[in-house]
Amino acid sequence: MSFQLNSPLDMHLHFREGAMLDLVAPLSAHSFSGGVVMPNLVPPVDDVHRLDAYERQVRAATSPLGFEPYMTLFMRPYTSEELSELRDRIIGVKLYPAGITTHSDQGVKNMDDVADTLRMMEEMEIPLLVHGETQGFVLDREVEFLSTYEQLASRYSKLKIVMEHITTLDALRLLDRYDNLYATVTLQHLMITLDDIAGGLMNPHLFCKPIAKRPEDRDALLSAALAPHPKLMFGSDSAPHPRDKKECCGCAAGVFTAPVALQILVELFAKHNALDALQAFTSDNARRIYGVNPPKKVVEFDNCGDVIPERYGDVIPIFAGQSTSYAITRVDTEL
Amino acid sequence: MSFQLNSPLDMHLHFREGAMLDLVAPLSAHSFSGGVVMPNLVPPVDDVHRLDAYERQVRAATSPLGFEPYMTLFMRPYTSEELSELRDRIIGVKLYPAGITTHSDQGVKNMDDVADTLRMMEEMEIPLLVHGETQGFVLDREVEFLSTYEQLASRYSKLKIVMEHITTLDALRLLDRYDNLYATVTLQHLMITLDDIAGGLMNPHLFCKPIAKRPEDRDALLSAALAPHPKLMFGSDSAPHPRDKKECCGCAAGVFTAPVALQILVELFAKHNALDALQAFTSDNARRIYGVNPPKKVVEFDNCGDVIPERYGDVIPIFAGQSTSYAITRVDTEL
Repeated sequence: MSFQLNSPLDMHLHFREGAMLDLVAPLSAHSFSGGVVMPNLVPPVDDVHRLDAYERQVRAATSPLGFEPYMTLFMRPYTSEELSELRDRIIGVKLYPAGITTHSDQGVKNMDDVADTLRMMEEMEIPLLVHGETQGFVLDREVEFLSTYEQLASRYSKLKIVMEHITTLDALRLLDRYDNLYATVTLQHLMITLDDIAGGLMNPHLFCKPIAKRPEDRDALLSAALAPHPKLMFGSDSAPHPRDKKECCGCAAGVFTAPVALQILVELFAKHNALDALQAFTSDNARRIYGVNPPKKVVEFDNCGDVIPERYGDVIPIFAGQSTSYAITRVDTEL
Repeated sequence: MSFQLNSPLDMHLHFREGAMLDLVAPLSAHSFSGGVVMPNLVPPVDDVHRLDAYERQVRAATSPLGFEPYMTLFMRPYTSEELSELRDRIIGVKLYPAGITTHSDQGVKNMDDVADTLRMMEEMEIPLLVHGETQGFVLDREVEFLSTYEQLASRYSKLKIVMEHITTLDALRLLDRYDNLYATVTLQHLMITLDDIAGGLMNPHLFCKPIAKRPEDRDALLSAALAPHPKLMFGSDSAPHPRDKKECCGCAAGVFTAPVALQILVELFAKHNALDALQAFTSDNARRIYGVNPPKKVVEFDNCGDVIPERYGDVIPIFAGQSTSYAITRVDTEL
């Protein structure tokens, strides 16, 4: 059986820099027509020079494949002049609470420090993207952050706020309580729970932040994606780490899913008789929410069976070596 | 400052067999005067021949160091003749629900299958030791098993039942509700939470079953040990795995603590001004509960500072390479 997606989008991506970017960015650009590129480099992308340099690297690796990178800035207190200059070049500003995940040391320590910036973003209609976790106990971090989302959503009621990579039923419920809240969800959080990471043998390749939660959380997220929930977008949070940073005694957080995410999503949605919902989840919702118009790209899938590669360069993908029912059989960019 | 323990006991130990036993058993025998040796070998220790052979291996590796191994049988339906023959050679029978942890495939699938055996054990005053987890979601397995403990404790009201390696506040509360329930707790479950395993980088060397739970669970277990709770015994559950089974993409469950457990416990209890409680927790409670009289051994500690070894053979201990304030400065076995 054949199935098509039009201009699929990945609304949360980590491309890194240099050789890693050259390895992973084309893999995303092959099957997606655009994606939100996260700014948590070292140093972060937080001024026009960093943005220029990073966008150039990203475009060089992806543009030939018909991919539009939606660039982001790393949240800090910005001036009105800075935001005015940059607003047309970015899709949003990404807020990391300080120290919460990979390369977030320079994140925001206190929301009051960026109050003026948030107000200006609201006026200039620049979306806010948030890694919403506290520094609390690992299973409570997202839920503890929800009150911050509520404060932001009510204080800046015209600011579009995207709760990135949500992992809990509680976050999903909040989505319906504020008009200006939206969310992304990853592939893995639709499929796995903490059991898959630490229930049997320990699996570092499924270890990510926020950590996968309980079965009822996973089930609620999957149901919302399959619905499709109009405010929920696919964002892989695909995060490449070299193998030696994953299979070691202190494994880094992040799952590499980008090159196989769409095939696995097609299989997942087909299994639940919800293929009709996948276009909204992987593209149309994001286009409407962000008002973007990505390059035309038709991606065709057939359930001819495939095997997920053991590795891409030195990076191990999710479900490496496992079989999957759908393969990408055609990508049309010239339409 | 110097501190002494008399005949410390480790009431839950994994020695394995062969070269691994030869490596790890003397490390326990050096500082402990006895310990409960678990029977989950392949095949399990569940008849007189296996018990003979295993006890011989264990005694050969430990007896010269003044260590009494308290042997256990792996639960299966036993005949009255078998139990009568073996009762004076074992400290108890260990029940594993099938498939729940390392080498438990041949465990009990249905409690009714061993009802007769449990009744005979009750009559013969043979304690029951239990790995109390269900096959449920990893964080719920122990709490889901508590109703089984309740059924066992009320149905066999004269059977001594030891809840092994408890990890939750709920299990601790159950301890006080049935006269015939007792418990062991490990070193790591007094010290760590899931945060230490998966809150920052992922740490396979702290991954064990049952998995470490929430801060309130850890705090409750520590408070009970420090009290000291009269029904709570130290049992390290020290489980040696070769390094390549821990630092790989599917890491095995188990923390190796035996050779450093006492030093770390002294430090922990000293920090909480509860050194007075450590003799009960690491020896006297077990002697009273099990009615054992271990070899005399005095272990002396001084807070002269020490560093936990990076490895013992090919096995990495807990907190490898970290400094610790107390060292074992003398062990007297000839008293």
